[in-house]
Amino acid sequence: MSYVLFYSPGAASMAVHWMLLELGVPFETRLVDIDTGAQRSPEYLRLNPTGRVPTLLVDGAPRGESTALLMLLAERHPESGLAPLPGEPERAEWLEMMIYLANAVLPAMRGWFYADTDGEPEGAAAVRAFERRQIETSMDNLDRLLGDGRHYLVGNRLSTADFLAITLMRWTRNMPRPATTWPHLARYIERLRARPAFLDLNAREKLTEWQNAP
Amino acid sequence: MSYVLFYSPGAASMAVHWMLLELGVPFETRLVDIDTGAQRSPEYLRLNPTGRVPTLLVDGAPRGESTALLMLLAERHPESGLAPLPGEPERAEWLEMMIYLANAVLPAMRGWFYADTDGEPEGAAAVRAFERRQIETSMDNLDRLLGDGRHYLVGNRLSTADFLAITLMRWTRNMPRPATTWPHLARYIERLRARPAFLDLNAREKLTEWQNAP
Repeated sequence: MSYVLFYSPGAASMAVHWMLLELGVPFETRLVDIDTGAQRSPEYLRLNPTGRVPTLLVDGAPRGESTALLMLLAERHPESGLAPLPGEPERAEWLEMMIYLANAVLPAMRGWFYADTDGEPEGAAAVRAFERRQIETSMDNLDRLLGDGRHYLVGNRLSTADFLAITLMRWTRNMPRPATTWPHLARYIERLRARPAFLDLNAREKLTEWQNAP
Repeated sequence: MSYVLFYSPGAASMAVHWMLLELGVPFETRLVDIDTGAQRSPEYLRLNPTGRVPTLLVDGAPRGESTALLMLLAERHPESGLAPLPGEPERAEWLEMMIYLANAVLPAMRGWFYADTDGEPEGAAAVRAFERRQIETSMDNLDRLLGDGRHYLVGNRLSTADFLAITLMRWTRNMPRPATTWPHLARYIERLRARPAFLDLNAREKLTEWQNAP
């Protein structure tokens, strides 16, 4: 099994990068610098026509969509325990959480960040206000879920849902209400950020913000 | 295996309802009339705190998120062939398409329909303009994909992706640009709407619009 990850620091690719580190499998990385528009180069668009990161070359074939890649890696490495197996009690809950993050949380954040460029600039403030409401509602929902004292989102064990959720929560750090201001999310974020693979991930992506105090 | 589907006619539940019919498994249905606000009744919110349809009782346990339910049903009924199995060549493509529909197409449509109620009414026109652009871009992408002559979205065989895509494309019927105005989508829609299970589905949900000419 060979993996080559095309990533941009702190982008959705971060969740996949994190998972590769937790899996402990060999992989290579290629930097796609979103700030310079590298995701719209002809070479990159041949791999990923949407011009988004991540792209993961899986045994040479390019695949996209971070949520799908997390699910694919989980089933290619079932021994990792990073997703409940089909038929296990938490399987349905895991599928539901993965889709909730992919369809209620991630697109609202994309809308917040790209309101100007994915739409008309004159409508951007209204779009951001709309997306902000969806984002904060989803943070309310996740905070409520974690309020029962669980350490992880699904089945009280580390799973792909945590990699995706933490990557998305990190994006709120400069929003009007950062995820760290919800009490149960704050506790959850602190715990996940303490993982050695998360520290390694930040070092590899050269990220210095949004880390636990030393 | 027992299934009870809480649905509203033509809503996202339609994709799951369709799949249950294609599977040919026994199931019961419960109507949740969105037009009268039944999805916000205390009884329904106990099953599904998001107040959305569908909810599927799977052996008595309530689960939500239509995309997740399609994936769950596919793995509970692998003999149906309605999803590539883990390890099969089209598996990664199927995961990617399911997530694309769930995260690029479905939320944009939700934003279009609920711009007034999920956000501030004064921003709704700008939100709808934004979502319209995302919806039409995704229809462009799907039309381009189908332009190679394939009959189905993934692996040239019927899969859960088709149930979800057709349900979403149906929602565009009164939008400024209905999906049926894209040439390859039109051909695809016509083929899928001809399936006996789709006709049965429409009869069961008492839907009369958006069907093939007799």
